[in-house]
Amino acid sequence: MPIPTIYSKDRKVFILDQTLLPLEKKYIQIKDEKEMWEAIKKLRIRGAPAIGIAAAFGIWLGIKDFKGDEIKKFLKRFNDVCDYLATSRPTAVNLFWAIDRIKNLVNKNLELKPEELKDIIFEEANLMIEEDNNVCRAIGCHGVRLIKDGDSLITHCNAGGLATAMYGTALAPMYRAKELGYNIHVWVDETRPLLQGARITAFELVEAKIPATLITDNMAAFVMYQGKVNLAIVGADRIAANGDTANKIGTLALAILSSEFNVPFYIAAPLSTIDLNKSSGEDIPIEERNPDEVIRGFGKQTAPSNIKVYNPAFDVTPARYITGIITEKGIIHPPFEENIKKLF
Amino acid sequence: MPIPTIYSKDRKVFILDQTLLPLEKKYIQIKDEKEMWEAIKKLRIRGAPAIGIAAAFGIWLGIKDFKGDEIKKFLKRFNDVCDYLATSRPTAVNLFWAIDRIKNLVNKNLELKPEELKDIIFEEANLMIEEDNNVCRAIGCHGVRLIKDGDSLITHCNAGGLATAMYGTALAPMYRAKELGYNIHVWVDETRPLLQGARITAFELVEAKIPATLITDNMAAFVMYQGKVNLAIVGADRIAANGDTANKIGTLALAILSSEFNVPFYIAAPLSTIDLNKSSGEDIPIEERNPDEVIRGFGKQTAPSNIKVYNPAFDVTPARYITGIITEKGIIHPPFEENIKKLF
Repeated sequence: MPIPTIYSKDRKVFILDQTLLPLEKKYIQIKDEKEMWEAIKKLRIRGAPAIGIAAAFGIWLGIKDFKGDEIKKFLKRFNDVCDYLATSRPTAVNLFWAIDRIKNLVNKNLELKPEELKDIIFEEANLMIEEDNNVCRAIGCHGVRLIKDGDSLITHCNAGGLATAMYGTALAPMYRAKELGYNIHVWVDETRPLLQGARITAFELVEAKIPATLITDNMAAFVMYQGKVNLAIVGADRIAANGDTANKIGTLALAILSSEFNVPFYIAAPLSTIDLNKSSGEDIPIEERNPDEVIRGFGKQTAPSNIKVYNPAFDVTPARYITGIITEKGIIHPPFEENIKKLF
Repeated sequence: MPIPTIYSKDRKVFILDQTLLPLEKKYIQIKDEKEMWEAIKKLRIRGAPAIGIAAAFGIWLGIKDFKGDEIKKFLKRFNDVCDYLATSRPTAVNLFWAIDRIKNLVNKNLELKPEELKDIIFEEANLMIEEDNNVCRAIGCHGVRLIKDGDSLITHCNAGGLATAMYGTALAPMYRAKELGYNIHVWVDETRPLLQGARITAFELVEAKIPATLITDNMAAFVMYQGKVNLAIVGADRIAANGDTANKIGTLALAILSSEFNVPFYIAAPLSTIDLNKSSGEDIPIEERNPDEVIRGFGKQTAPSNIKVYNPAFDVTPARYITGIITEKGIIHPPFEENIKKLF
């Protein structure tokens, strides 16, 4: 079973401190909004869905000790906490989505007393975990139909439980396969430059007791050449209306290699990842990151300081390399443009 | 111009200490056979051709201070030095090739006096540098015909000057292009796990003032997708009689991506790399290396200790992905089996 990223127990909130991975697995209690702000800021918790849930719990932690019945004072405190948490990671879209969701909830329930509002915020944060689990489990249940007992899969980066509340997207079908008693094996791309595969996906799979083997990204071709891969599943950062998919750098290479070796290549992502406003991958902007991630990635300088570096965070995989998109509502097959429209 | 790996001046021997790269460019004088043994052992000098040349100079350093005219005593000392140097890197084929070459030279000249033998050994070691330079320059001159002014190339690992005496194999056509005044640009795969691209190729190209950009291996596909690569040239560890080529892990992926994006993919290697005893790539054994190179690559652990790791040093690129093989005698095109035979 995958391990939770964030949970509440006896009205206390705990997160797995991901900055200690892969060396240490330690849950820490988050006691107030300041600690949650710091946890988001310092990437103790990361991944779009997980950040949203963390923000919701952060709001609750910030108002749970409010004393008194005065709704106006309560709302002042509530808004201050929301504004404060919004500054923790200003580029994370899900952070704002979650804060807005809690704000809307409060605005619809202004007739309630502060104590009651506290409770519905707490319930909403927990509901967000449930919803995330349901979406991920649904992706797992649809995706597992692609997996046969004995299969060897490959994945890139971390679209695992630790980016969501628990099950993840690309890893959800693998967790489901494990639950169903299938013997599977997963090749894990280490995913340079930030090594999310080595640090996080490898950790998750070891924890879940799913046999896995770590490789450097440039080994995937040779493993496929030897006939050792049956299926590729990766996550997505954004999917255009025609199925073109932006995901962690290296995804395009894996998709092309899969196509060359006749390995089915699937994207696993919630429907919310599909951006109908982008007609194709060409409309998706590609973030370029700091060269230091490439030349000083391991705490040690590994290239001359005066070498130029190109460090795109993502690449775009054209839909023609994608066998299907596993969503919580089922698997979308080509023609993607048509079949994506049908699902919305 | 590329920088020399090893050279003699005023009967003193100098090597570039490659363990200090990419942070420091420092030539050290090697004063005796013990210092040369240590330099080879500790990879201060590396790359098959360079190791051979280093061994030849090491022999000379070991006998140059021999006093007296007694040929028997001289030969005893000579053989001791050869045996000693052979233990510096027992798996390096070129080490033994070079020692045998000097031994044969001495055996054919037993009528000479020790002082004269010293001189012909010194001359032979210097001749080996010349020969290596000639082979590499010939590869460069043949290879440069593939390059047009303004081209952007891509390479993997280091088949550069620092693996040979000076010019390298895969990099030789680029150095030649620079000499001819072509404006070129080179994408350098960092080459996980040991980062020879980031540490050595990037350093060489910066030194030679050839514009270059470092990328992680998994970015090559995206760079090609954007139409930014005209030509791929890599080295070879061993080439089978049918053209299948074993080279640093990641070469196969680059070859397949090149094929997908219609980028001509060339191997650059001396004819001595072609092993006619291997009928195809399937006969070439693949060395597996220590998992620590992947999970503790740079003094820092980056994956859970209990994750399984696959770490092949090389992969095999089937001849069908190879556009041509650049050798010192010209470029070999398909059908390789036939055309390789013709050249021998």
